[in-house]
Amino acid sequence: MRRYIWVTLAITLLAVPAGYAYVYWAKSGPGAGLYSQEWKPEALHAYWDPDRFYQSPQTLQGEFKGEECIACHSAVTPGIVNDWRASRHAHPGQGKEPVYCSACHGSNHQALRMPTPKVCAQCHENRVAQFMDEKRYGFPSHALAMERAVDAKHFADKPKAEVAACLQCHSVATKCDSCHTRHRFSAAEARRPEACVTCHSGPPHPDDDSYFASAHGKKYLAEAVKQDWNKPLAKGNYATPTCAYCHMHEGRHQVADKTIWKFGLLEVNPNTSGNEVRRAAWVKVCSDCHEAGWSAEQLKSLDRERKQAWAKLYQAEHMLKDLRGKDLLHPGPRERPPYPMDAMETLFPKARIGYYDGQASAFYNVSPIERDYFEMWYFANLGAYKSAAHGDSASVKRWHTILDKSLAVIETKAQALQTQGKAEQKSRGRRADPGRLWLEGEYTGHNREHN
Amino acid sequence: MRRYIWVTLAITLLAVPAGYAYVYWAKSGPGAGLYSQEWKPEALHAYWDPDRFYQSPQTLQGEFKGEECIACHSAVTPGIVNDWRASRHAHPGQGKEPVYCSACHGSNHQALRMPTPKVCAQCHENRVAQFMDEKRYGFPSHALAMERAVDAKHFADKPKAEVAACLQCHSVATKCDSCHTRHRFSAAEARRPEACVTCHSGPPHPDDDSYFASAHGKKYLAEAVKQDWNKPLAKGNYATPTCAYCHMHEGRHQVADKTIWKFGLLEVNPNTSGNEVRRAAWVKVCSDCHEAGWSAEQLKSLDRERKQAWAKLYQAEHMLKDLRGKDLLHPGPRERPPYPMDAMETLFPKARIGYYDGQASAFYNVSPIERDYFEMWYFANLGAYKSAAHGDSASVKRWHTILDKSLAVIETKAQALQTQGKAEQKSRGRRADPGRLWLEGEYTGHNREHN
Amino acid sequence: MRRYIWVTLAITLLAVPAGYAYVYWAKSGPGAGLYSQEWKPEALHAYWDPDRFYQSPQTLQGEFKGEECIACHSAVTPGIVNDWRASRHAHPGQGKEPVYCSACHGSNHQALRMPTPKVCAQCHENRVAQFMDEKRYGFPSHALAMERAVDAKHFADKPKAEVAACLQCHSVATKCDSCHTRHRFSAAEARRPEACVTCHSGPPHPDDDSYFASAHGKKYLAEAVKQDWNKPLAKGNYATPTCAYCHMHEGRHQVADKTIWKFGLLEVNPNTSGNEVRRAAWVKVCSDCHEAGWSAEQLKSLDRERKQAWAKLYQAEHMLKDLRGKDLLHPGPRERPPYPMDAMETLFPKARIGYYDGQASAFYNVSPIERDYFEMWYFANLGAYKSAAHGDSASVKRWHTILDKSLAVIETKAQALQTQGKAEQKSRGRRADPGRLWLEGEYTGHNREHN
Repeated sequence: MRRYIWVTLAITLLAVPAGYAYVYWAKSGPGAGLYSQEWKPEALHAYWDPDRFYQSPQTLQGEFKGEECIACHSAVTPGIVNDWRASRHAHPGQGKEPVYCSACHGSNHQALRMPTPKVCAQCHENRVAQFMDEKRYGFPSHALAMERAVDAKHFADKPKAEVAACLQCHSVATKCDSCHTRHRFSAAEARRPEACVTCHSGPPHPDDDSYFASAHGKKYLAEAVKQDWNKPLAKGNYATPTCAYCHMHEGRHQVADKTIWKFGLLEVNPNTSGNEVRRAAWVKVCSDCHEAGWSAEQLKSLDRERKQAWAKLYQAEHMLKDLRGKDLLHPGPRERPPYPMDAMETLFPKARIGYYDGQASAFYNVSPIERDYFEMWYFANLGAYKSAAHGDSASVKRWHTILDKSLAVIETKAQALQTQGKAEQKSRGRRADPGRLWLEGEYTGHNREHN
Repeated sequence: MRRYIWVTLAITLLAVPAGYAYVYWAKSGPGAGLYSQEWKPEALHAYWDPDRFYQSPQTLQGEFKGEECIACHSAVTPGIVNDWRASRHAHPGQGKEPVYCSACHGSNHQALRMPTPKVCAQCHENRVAQFMDEKRYGFPSHALAMERAVDAKHFADKPKAEVAACLQCHSVATKCDSCHTRHRFSAAEARRPEACVTCHSGPPHPDDDSYFASAHGKKYLAEAVKQDWNKPLAKGNYATPTCAYCHMHEGRHQVADKTIWKFGLLEVNPNTSGNEVRRAAWVKVCSDCHEAGWSAEQLKSLDRERKQAWAKLYQAEHMLKDLRGKDLLHPGPRERPPYPMDAMETLFPKARIGYYDGQASAFYNVSPIERDYFEMWYFANLGAYKSAAHGDSASVKRWHTILDKSLAVIETKAQALQTQGKAEQKSRGRRADPGRLWLEGEYTGHNREHN
Repeated sequence: MRRYIWVTLAITLLAVPAGYAYVYWAKSGPGAGLYSQEWKPEALHAYWDPDRFYQSPQTLQGEFKGEECIACHSAVTPGIVNDWRASRHAHPGQGKEPVYCSACHGSNHQALRMPTPKVCAQCHENRVAQFMDEKRYGFPSHALAMERAVDAKHFADKPKAEVAACLQCHSVATKCDSCHTRHRFSAAEARRPEACVTCHSGPPHPDDDSYFASAHGKKYLAEAVKQDWNKPLAKGNYATPTCAYCHMHEGRHQVADKTIWKFGLLEVNPNTSGNEVRRAAWVKVCSDCHEAGWSAEQLKSLDRERKQAWAKLYQAEHMLKDLRGKDLLHPGPRERPPYPMDAMETLFPKARIGYYDGQASAFYNVSPIERDYFEMWYFANLGAYKSAAHGDSASVKRWHTILDKSLAVIETKAQALQTQGKAEQKSRGRRADPGRLWLEGEYTGHNREHN
């Protein structure tokens, strides 16, 4: 008996450091994240993730003072110098020194840096701390956007043109000018919805469409020009609510702690004690303008919409799980090319059905019916959620019709797979190949080799 | 012979009051409209249809004067007090008393009311009268929006989340702040297209897309900021036409009397004497900026577009009517769940094909091919109409391609139904079930039971 | 031997003038362009192509001086008089005479003209010359927009309602008020993106969607109101780049000479010496605000996206060419109604597959699979290009997914056509008709007869 203990202990003592060593090695490749050995960054990555990839150009030698930067760049890149001149960095108020280029980029022109939140935190410690505090709430959150992107399995598989497309938004975690456009870094600009919807647009998060289609959004479109955007995001200061007014009330750089429905990604119990606290926080914000009772009813209406959406998603999941149980998904998990580096999945291949089964990595490497479910969940469901949450009622209807139609498509395909499966079990033949778009389209070994 | 007269007379004398009594009963349920017995309102209905459903919260006792309302609500809900302070209600001009909260909501805090057009008519009698006058022109019109919504058969069937989505816009009939956002009630704001497109967007009425894509709309987007929106909607005051400039010229709150093409819903003879009067009214408005001859040609171009669209719709109708004549629609009218309360339809079930056959209630409870026709008629056709009417010429092309494709789909399905029908008549077997999405999706007895 | 020379010479001497005569005759019909014998203009064409079709209304007799025009039209059409009064034409600066209506429209009210670029060139010679210079670069270009539209085969086939839709934008070649809205003709207005996107929107050129979704576009939406649009489009004057800032830098009315990727329509070698010159010109514009290295990398990223897109398009082309080689397209080129006047094509009918095979005329008169390829090339591919070029990264991803799905559809259909073809070769039977939408929809002899 005792021998087993010693063996187990010895294995554990070896396995834990071996695990750490493996992850350390996995993350130490030319790329970033858990699959960093599988891909190489291209030049633009330097701008999306400067801490990891930026290297100063070697065009000019010398150390420069702030005034010298400005003097030269007024001619070289006047656009950004104009922006800086209009900024508070240039006019910090009586008695204070301007914050020159060199304060953020360094003064050695051969060792320039691209500023990250750490650099901004030298002065804006409180805001950056609030922002980083989002990490506590897990993903989705701004602060984890880059880390979780590069850790995703499908990341290493993608062609570079798409990876760049992803990172442009996910770089919100690694640099502050996603919202505060360089080099003005204007709080007034960042308070406007346009600052948010550069990224929060299109599937799976049509925040722009749903907000601008709502009564709030229409009032914004008509009256934004009269609003003084220099005012703090506080009760009584704004005629129209905006992304920031509701989600970053009083300027708090933390949008994750009021989240009841987790972005619509999974079903939650909207009435846990934690969610009742969040609900009260929402009603408090709404009550700056609306009656509290009315606001609470709006949230209940959202709860009902979510329940209805999830009832549809679960119907689809149920059909897929039944197929999986009978090994009727086609191509089945064992017939697919593996994700890179995913040794575990080579041993235990899995279908991707519900959120907890790895749905979040179900963009590719799935059978057609899994992809249909993925689109139902990730596009139609999230569209319905955003529309309901932002008061775009016509789109709630539109997205629910799409959910209905998706369900009908999945049902039809599931029936066909069931029938084909039975026929196969009789004849021991093999189904015709249903096309390998989601397996081999552009997300293949080829890309992996060239990434 | 005389006996029959007496019997007929007696039956009539009983039937008429019985009919009235039935309708009275039907409308007296917990909901509203002809199917009010079938559904119960949820809390938010109180805001969409206050006359019927609003009940004052019992939070606070006492009678309050206007100044007292303001004093307290400046702290409680400063956003709306700010809006009021910026309104003409707060500054009605020399010698006049401000119109305080209590003038509209009442002064007893336990018997507050939500203002309806009747309340607004206390001062704005003329505008409300113009608005109500739309009823003469039947539906679609703003003034009948709520009544006709709740009288529709499909209303009682729908899940609550969708009903709320419908009512948010249809409440334009029951409260004036659909266009004049509370609590500023600004005419200047209501003159802007944003006030209209909160509702006039998306299928079946992409008024926003079509206007903003037109040359008019682009000019609006570029120059709206320079326009003085306090000017009346009259000749020479506006650099760019807007929804209100053309449809509510000189501020008339009546948009139905200039309608030639009836929203695109049905084919009309565009050259009746009545329509020639309306046409002349349009040319007059266009002539504020354009040559009259050019304007008349634009309208003729719209006539041609309509003729072309209806030629396509009639081709589809013809195929469906042929199927109906041979009882080849599947599931046929007798195979569908009945609409609630619709005793007549239980006796005489009918397919929903053309506008006059009840197309307006063909959202659900139809066979797949009827739904295809419905979408062709209600989405693609109306999209084409709005694009042509508002000068979004690229979308005219786009929508007509969609009409073409819809027609091709309907043709394919009709051929299949014809073939299946013949096979059935030979074998006396029964077709496979084509899926029950439009019959049982979410528009089923279940919802009816819980509405 | 000598006899052949004489015969050849005689035939040539006859054929060349015969060819010229034929083209002259072909262009001399009631319409315009190579197929002018096949269609008649409708009244609105007079406004799209005034030089060819405008005829003065005969409403009023007399010669009028500029002041007289204004005096009368202030009452008749005050909107456009207001626009003129706000224009530089009305206030040309000290000592200069206003440019009255009569300067452009003529003073004889029975022989009014609609101004064309030629008229504008009386004063704005340089700008019009720059504009016309675009012709050197072939189509697509603004200056050739009308000519190439009416010379296209599918033009004569189209229903009038669609032709009008086309011409509204293609008239950019024949009148300057496409961008400089009459009667203000404001340079400040034309500098704004709204002036461009009236036409540059929707498939196949979603320039509006892609620009407004980019970080540039969002900054524009938030800050355009603060920009002084009277400033020249030069380095340091603009906080946000716009269509005109980048494509018409320093106001040059020539957008074709910086084009590397030819609108995305065909694959190009992006690194020819000519393209390296264009690339340098782009980097120079970007460098007004961005680092040159970063800008060059963005262009390389676009190159990569293009390469990826064309790899997909070529896969589809390859499948279609294989079908064509085996005569398996259905309906095949010999089974289609001929284009009007196209005697050559009657003799040598052809499929329309790649760009050089006449893809540009493949809207109609093609088999379903050719149309699928057309939509893949013309809508999805160009959408991807515009998104990549304008920095709308989310849409790059979206369009590439659509390219993938299109490819899968084409593959499925190609396989079916191959199988059907083999079966036919065995049985010598004939395939079932796949529907004649793209052959006979609304683009048939009927339209031709009535055009």
